[in-house]
Amino acid sequence: MTALPDKLTGFNRVEFEDTCRRRFFFGLAFDPYGGTAGLYDLGPPMCAMKANMLSFWRQHFVLEENMCEVDTTCLTPEEVFIASGHVTRFNDVMVRDTVSGECIRADKYIEEFCETKLKDPKITPEDIDTFKKLHNAAGSFNKDELAAVIAKYSLKSPKGNALSEPFPFNLMFSSKIGPEGHKTGYLRPELAQGIILNFKRLMDSGNAQRMPFAGACIGNAFRNEIAPRAALIRVREFTLAEIEHFVNPSQKAHAKFDRIKDVQFHAWTRALQSANKEPEVMTIGDAVANKLVDNETLGYFIARTQLFLAACGAKYVRFRQHHLNEMAHYAQDCWDAELLTSYGWVECVGIADRSAYDLTCHSKGSGKELSAREEFAEPVMVRTLQRTINKAAAGKAFGKNNAAVVAHINNLSEEECVALGEQLQSGEVEITLPTGTVKLSSAIVQFTFKDEKVSGRNYIPSVIEPSFGIGRVLYSILEQSYWIRRDDTGKNDKRAVYSLSPLMAPQKVAILPLMVKPELEPLMISLRDELVVLGISNRTDDSGAAIGKKYARVDELGVPFCITLDFAGDGCVTLRERDSAKQVRVPREAVCGVVQALCRTVNPRDWASVEAEFPAQGSSE
Amino acid sequence: MTALPDKLTGFNRVEFEDTCRRRFFFGLAFDPYGGTAGLYDLGPPMCAMKANMLSFWRQHFVLEENMCEVDTTCLTPEEVFIASGHVTRFNDVMVRDTVSGECIRADKYIEEFCETKLKDPKITPEDIDTFKKLHNAAGSFNKDELAAVIAKYSLKSPKGNALSEPFPFNLMFSSKIGPEGHKTGYLRPELAQGIILNFKRLMDSGNAQRMPFAGACIGNAFRNEIAPRAALIRVREFTLAEIEHFVNPSQKAHAKFDRIKDVQFHAWTRALQSANKEPEVMTIGDAVANKLVDNETLGYFIARTQLFLAACGAKYVRFRQHHLNEMAHYAQDCWDAELLTSYGWVECVGIADRSAYDLTCHSKGSGKELSAREEFAEPVMVRTLQRTINKAAAGKAFGKNNAAVVAHINNLSEEECVALGEQLQSGEVEITLPTGTVKLSSAIVQFTFKDEKVSGRNYIPSVIEPSFGIGRVLYSILEQSYWIRRDDTGKNDKRAVYSLSPLMAPQKVAILPLMVKPELEPLMISLRDELVVLGISNRTDDSGAAIGKKYARVDELGVPFCITLDFAGDGCVTLRERDSAKQVRVPREAVCGVVQALCRTVNPRDWASVEAEFPAQGSSE
Repeated sequence: MTALPDKLTGFNRVEFEDTCRRRFFFGLAFDPYGGTAGLYDLGPPMCAMKANMLSFWRQHFVLEENMCEVDTTCLTPEEVFIASGHVTRFNDVMVRDTVSGECIRADKYIEEFCETKLKDPKITPEDIDTFKKLHNAAGSFNKDELAAVIAKYSLKSPKGNALSEPFPFNLMFSSKIGPEGHKTGYLRPELAQGIILNFKRLMDSGNAQRMPFAGACIGNAFRNEIAPRAALIRVREFTLAEIEHFVNPSQKAHAKFDRIKDVQFHAWTRALQSANKEPEVMTIGDAVANKLVDNETLGYFIARTQLFLAACGAKYVRFRQHHLNEMAHYAQDCWDAELLTSYGWVECVGIADRSAYDLTCHSKGSGKELSAREEFAEPVMVRTLQRTINKAAAGKAFGKNNAAVVAHINNLSEEECVALGEQLQSGEVEITLPTGTVKLSSAIVQFTFKDEKVSGRNYIPSVIEPSFGIGRVLYSILEQSYWIRRDDTGKNDKRAVYSLSPLMAPQKVAILPLMVKPELEPLMISLRDELVVLGISNRTDDSGAAIGKKYARVDELGVPFCITLDFAGDGCVTLRERDSAKQVRVPREAVCGVVQALCRTVNPRDWASVEAEFPAQGSSE
Repeated sequence: MTALPDKLTGFNRVEFEDTCRRRFFFGLAFDPYGGTAGLYDLGPPMCAMKANMLSFWRQHFVLEENMCEVDTTCLTPEEVFIASGHVTRFNDVMVRDTVSGECIRADKYIEEFCETKLKDPKITPEDIDTFKKLHNAAGSFNKDELAAVIAKYSLKSPKGNALSEPFPFNLMFSSKIGPEGHKTGYLRPELAQGIILNFKRLMDSGNAQRMPFAGACIGNAFRNEIAPRAALIRVREFTLAEIEHFVNPSQKAHAKFDRIKDVQFHAWTRALQSANKEPEVMTIGDAVANKLVDNETLGYFIARTQLFLAACGAKYVRFRQHHLNEMAHYAQDCWDAELLTSYGWVECVGIADRSAYDLTCHSKGSGKELSAREEFAEPVMVRTLQRTINKAAAGKAFGKNNAAVVAHINNLSEEECVALGEQLQSGEVEITLPTGTVKLSSAIVQFTFKDEKVSGRNYIPSVIEPSFGIGRVLYSILEQSYWIRRDDTGKNDKRAVYSLSPLMAPQKVAILPLMVKPELEPLMISLRDELVVLGISNRTDDSGAAIGKKYARVDELGVPFCITLDFAGDGCVTLRERDSAKQVRVPREAVCGVVQALCRTVNPRDWASVEAEFPAQGSSE
């Protein structure tokens, strides 16, 4: 594998953003009204890239893995996010400028404060150490720790005013569902709950009750970010593609692990991070064998994600393992696929083993048992506690308290039953209930153990979740594919090129008449019609611009191939490859087929074989 | 064209819904919590159908017409919907049960009241007429008309309580954007604004300023329906696919009209509706020539929509023209594509000429000129009004009122300027401004006309909008494709079949081993791997069920083809077609290619040619 650089070399963000704006890859939404922070529109090139990526995601994951894809709603009733814990815990901590009322995200504000300190040329070595540590730790601080830092350094607001005490701010957008206005709903901040709540229906309807299986979903999520920034990286509305793989917690081996065990990846384990070392290249097979990755299923999805990102054209990818104190309390193991951008390494895909947390929450929250059934290979003997209550005697003894007594006994743990049973051996036991005090006796209540042959068990599945931030992946690939073509003369040195893979390119091919002549129009139209029938996206440029200018225009849209039409009269057209600018002469009748092969999703033809088959035409540069 | 039936014959909604539930085509969202009215999840079969439809929509419209697709946000700041009129006008009228507080949509409640009356066997002929008319008119009543009906018939709530006065209820979901909580946003109830606000960027960036061109967008929209009902037909969150075609209002001919002029459609014109007549079959060429459809561009999109729906497998489609009093005040002409369902004819696609309304609203709302430029073939002489203000004299005469005077004069219409100019000929004119009263004289203000040669003009484009309700189209096609297969014995007569086109089918092919034998597994896996590489969605069923049962299982998922694996040892497999249940023997090496050809998006191979090429195997029934 190629080594990972520290940063994108030669990347000029001003020029990059200028190209993105000029060709409308993306831009602030509601532009005529001055835009809205954190809301972005994708223009035609990036919208097409997104459709290409999602289509490939469906092939790579849903089709290849036989997943059950669902389409779930953004609007979500409150009870779902109460059960999942989002209503109480999906917060960032913010502080308020006590004069202007402006709100600031506390951890990011402290990070910026550290960055400013670290830029001071007169900083002492001790302070470098202090502020680097503070910078790295701020994101995991709680409210009180943040308050302590603000007090210690007497931080003021950007306007120089006093700051409020830090307080939690819930990132979910809320609204009211229904005309009466008393039912609160939230816009989902992730897709997980929508898939997980369909667990039973998916298992029953499509899957003939077989475990393991995976649900998948593509859709939008919403977070009311306090400080949206960094172009498409931290926004308030974004597209996710998520998988929830349901698996027996005691059987996390993966049937297809052998197919991917030799896939290499840049692994940045906890240990390497703590030792301040760089990521190491290893195979996923070794990572699982050496217990660096918790289990085969998690490893399988790391490998499949690596393959997906590589096919999309991501060049610089590393997988960072979460620290133990960084993971949610229920998570078993978690790895982020990070892509290198000019903003640093950006978390684009999270791959987490969430254990049985979600299904347990929603079983409790909804009162429905969200479990799967495991049949044992051989029946096993199981000892179970029997709670026997003499109904007639109990009714007589407890009267109106009877129901409360029964509930109390059924709610006791196994240990508590054993203890109570022992007490009852020595006489009556008094217990206090909300409805009054009663006396239990062994004539009324007995606890016994029974041995039974059991053929299977119900269990709550673990969930392994790969979650793709589609906008982040797209943006990172766009940055990584960007470069400037310099010609021999040293002039025209601002010709931007996006070296997007044919899979991702917004259009696969441009049809470019060498000059504006009506005689060339039928050929252009017939080529276009043929490509449309083949489903190959394309664009034409029949303007009066010079051919070099036309190439430059499509290079900066990432179009990988051009077909140039001329008057040679040999029944051929010129086919040009974007990155090398090399050209070959191809018969008109063959050219659409060649382009189709070059742009196939799986096993595309490579350009070298095209150069080998057809005569060269000299570079277009 | 086939004639249109009055209703879907032989359709049994209970059985249909049972199949949809059992195979999880769709279901109420948040099922374990009892569901939320108006919010539905699509399960795997319908989710795949939706992806297929949207992918074909992109090919049929975006690619074939070279449209500029954008991806815009659901969250929208308030100012956008103030300018577009949605904040004041996007309402339904509702009434409240004065005791229980329940809210009821007034027009639908009156419709239901009429339906109940019309079911009364003792109803008089006069009342039949009265309640039929009231039923058809209720939807267009305003608040006061609805109040009058409620009073006239002393309508009570479903619980028998008094109803409140009717009042408007805005259907947009609102939320707060940003941490400060003082910026109101709405979830968009349609996609139009997001596309239209990108008009300038699209024209400048992708389109080299050429008109006409179209923007397109696929995404979710949200309406807080008072009374969600009828499965996927009236829901609170739904997917739209919209096109906004920007065109010079004086040039609505369409360059490709000739390609589609012979397309036939069921046209239900205003005149036919008013005369209580059925839709008539005509060609779109005739409809435009006879001025039944307002212009070629609108007609072009009607024809393209007809072709799209037919390719998706819609059997019963009619185009209903809006009445003049039914259209928005700014609309020039509007046609709805309606599909027949068990709920009656359902509006699935709206195709409207919205004139220059939207861009005009947003030019005013944002203060940005959202116009296009037209260069004339020949320069023309244009007489323009000049408003000359003597600045020095004005400053002296008006002092602090000066700015207000200048604004006043610039805001006068041409007619007002002419009139004022005439008055000024006869002496000073006193005008009253918010800032005070001033006297104008001809020494300070003059109006003159100037003749100028002009090479072009700026104009605000008209917008022609085809808007597809994706969930409604999907649901209608699902109903129209549903039937029950009856076998010779009269038993098993509840075998549901969805005759979905290969284009729409959730999976194209099922791979079915004839029996459970490990020897058949390698063949099954190799077929599956080959299909995955070709991007052909498929499913396998290696359960122990009988082959007839396996066919039934995939028939009720709409899978058009089955490959059955057996032990014949002739290197062949059996290929079965769903609707006819006919079977042929095809060599293993050829079968994936045959399936690929049968399922091509454009010009698919037909089954008859497969039957002609390969030996028959007898029907699977």
